[in-house]
Amino acid sequence: MHDRTPQTRHLTDADRIDRLRLIRSDNVGPRTFNSLISHFGNARAALERLPDLAQRGGAVRSGRICSEEEARAEIAAASNIGVSLVAPGEAAYPPRLATLDDPPPLLGVRGAPEVLMRPMIAIVGSRNASGAGLKFAGQLARDLGDAGFVVISGLARGIDQAAHRATIQSGTVAVLAGGHDRIYPPEHADLLTALLEHGGAISEMPLGHVPRARDFPRRNRLISGASLGVVVIEAAHRSGSLITARMAAEQGREVFAVPGSPLDPRAAGTNDLIKQGAALVTEASDVINAVQPILERPVMLETREGDEPLDFDTDPGERERVVALLGPSPVSLDDLIRMSGLSPTIVRTVLLELELAGRLERHGGGLVSLI
Amino acid sequence: MHDRTPQTRHLTDADRIDRLRLIRSDNVGPRTFNSLISHFGNARAALERLPDLAQRGGAVRSGRICSEEEARAEIAAASNIGVSLVAPGEAAYPPRLATLDDPPPLLGVRGAPEVLMRPMIAIVGSRNASGAGLKFAGQLARDLGDAGFVVISGLARGIDQAAHRATIQSGTVAVLAGGHDRIYPPEHADLLTALLEHGGAISEMPLGHVPRARDFPRRNRLISGASLGVVVIEAAHRSGSLITARMAAEQGREVFAVPGSPLDPRAAGTNDLIKQGAALVTEASDVINAVQPILERPVMLETREGDEPLDFDTDPGERERVVALLGPSPVSLDDLIRMSGLSPTIVRTVLLELELAGRLERHGGGLVSLI
Repeated sequence: MHDRTPQTRHLTDADRIDRLRLIRSDNVGPRTFNSLISHFGNARAALERLPDLAQRGGAVRSGRICSEEEARAEIAAASNIGVSLVAPGEAAYPPRLATLDDPPPLLGVRGAPEVLMRPMIAIVGSRNASGAGLKFAGQLARDLGDAGFVVISGLARGIDQAAHRATIQSGTVAVLAGGHDRIYPPEHADLLTALLEHGGAISEMPLGHVPRARDFPRRNRLISGASLGVVVIEAAHRSGSLITARMAAEQGREVFAVPGSPLDPRAAGTNDLIKQGAALVTEASDVINAVQPILERPVMLETREGDEPLDFDTDPGERERVVALLGPSPVSLDDLIRMSGLSPTIVRTVLLELELAGRLERHGGGLVSLI
Repeated sequence: MHDRTPQTRHLTDADRIDRLRLIRSDNVGPRTFNSLISHFGNARAALERLPDLAQRGGAVRSGRICSEEEARAEIAAASNIGVSLVAPGEAAYPPRLATLDDPPPLLGVRGAPEVLMRPMIAIVGSRNASGAGLKFAGQLARDLGDAGFVVISGLARGIDQAAHRATIQSGTVAVLAGGHDRIYPPEHADLLTALLEHGGAISEMPLGHVPRARDFPRRNRLISGASLGVVVIEAAHRSGSLITARMAAEQGREVFAVPGSPLDPRAAGTNDLIKQGAALVTEASDVINAVQPILERPVMLETREGDEPLDFDTDPGERERVVALLGPSPVSLDDLIRMSGLSPTIVRTVLLELELAGRLERHGGGLVSLI
């Protein structure tokens, strides 16, 4: 079973190096990367403008720009441990991940390339799951694997581990919050090695990157984004798995939840998800039947070019008007446009400049705040 | 908190006796009762025609017709144990029960009359429930009682018992499958006595009637019919509580289900209900918020008079055409009309005659079969 995806792209070495330099430079995330590429046409042109744009945004000191040597060194080091850096649309880049609004511009992939192109179902849940939860996770993962799906998860303790372990033979993908050489938790290094034979691992982080707390929600975005749908098994109120479920919903992915007794706090989050509209899952067919119609439609890679234009003819006065409206509390782009009286293009451009200057933080739901 | 119901009716003694005679006569159920009353105008006129109609339907021997003496004796005996026989629209007849298509023409009611007029929520579930299920049933019932709702259930072991016991003070109603003097299970006689102080008990069966298996689905129809909604707690596949849930849906009542682990067979039925659209319940507010909008609308007693006319000018040939299409397998009224080529009125009349002759069995969903 394959997702019906046209393989559309193969980067030149030079383009891959330029893209890697741009995404590894200070204050450039996937969203900024895509805005810059969309405006300047290619990574090389964007790189040349970075210092100037950051300065316009009020950078106190110049952000670090990744050099060509550093980029070449990362590609070589990655290659040494079997990791390739691939762009959306290239082979081994999970097709559904490429359909996100802001897919990682380069993804470190490792393992069996073909498995990364197959339809995936995410299974996530509590790190301190119950015996019943772990058993059910294994059973569901095995049944989904037998039905031809790749099970994708976060290599964490508990539910993630049970889901990966049950699908080592059928194919499973681990999404890492750190670099490919910084496995977390460290005791799952063996599990990772075992699953790489028929499965894969992906990360958007550079080699050597040790995962911090803020990297896990970012990792969760890839788990849900690469999948047709996310199954949440055992999640307490306000747990990380619920963030994955929320991201899945925002990304247009199916959300599934496994119910539990109202007296079991480990089921509070999943029961809530069902109240909010997630599909209740007690067996693999509940998932398979729900995603079947989606599978029958080809995966469309959206082109975002030109849909959010920038305009670098901003003047300092306009920039000041936007900055004056920003503070530590997150505010929406729409509110900024309305309150400033400026055009969407100008506001977006100012925000991008502030971001490159290291002064802006982006939150979920299109909210931004000043750092 | 009261349902906003106009109290519309008070029977004369003579009318009460006639109605009791009619519903206690052989082969007369609530549906036939209402058809006859609708056609002949009152119970007395219908009683006079019963032998003739049963004969037209091919009765091999005359069905027993309840005599005036028997009816008076039942009313007196009922009165002796505190049971009144009330008609839809009279005081102490649960208002929502009166809105069913075929409400019991006379209901034996006992206990605190005002409690029977208050808004009710049904709680039903497994007889062999788990400790967690029993605990949750008690907790939910208590919270609903504290919020002003009367909890209605079937006085059975397990969930029913826990729900009644938790609401003895706030008011609870037991629906009996047998007569008021034939409590089942017998060991719940004390529970019944305790709940009668602030609550009530209802039955559509005559005194002395020992409940048989077929009486329980009939009892379940009253549990769901009298309530705003039914909460199912712990139900295995194909359990009686699921019949109550199905009836609730057919009656336009809300259906609620309490989730459980997919590995717990006692939650299989409730999880299935949620998959089919029942609302997931983990706390009383899930129920209260859902029924609040219904409570704000007044309860409307529907008048069914004349909506399904009969025509006793049938000829034997027409009767034979209907009988020829009937067998032991249930068939729908619509199919009978289509296949016979006869008018709906004629087919309904023939079926009523067959029923009075003791030759017809009615099933759920408007299906009928020959006995």
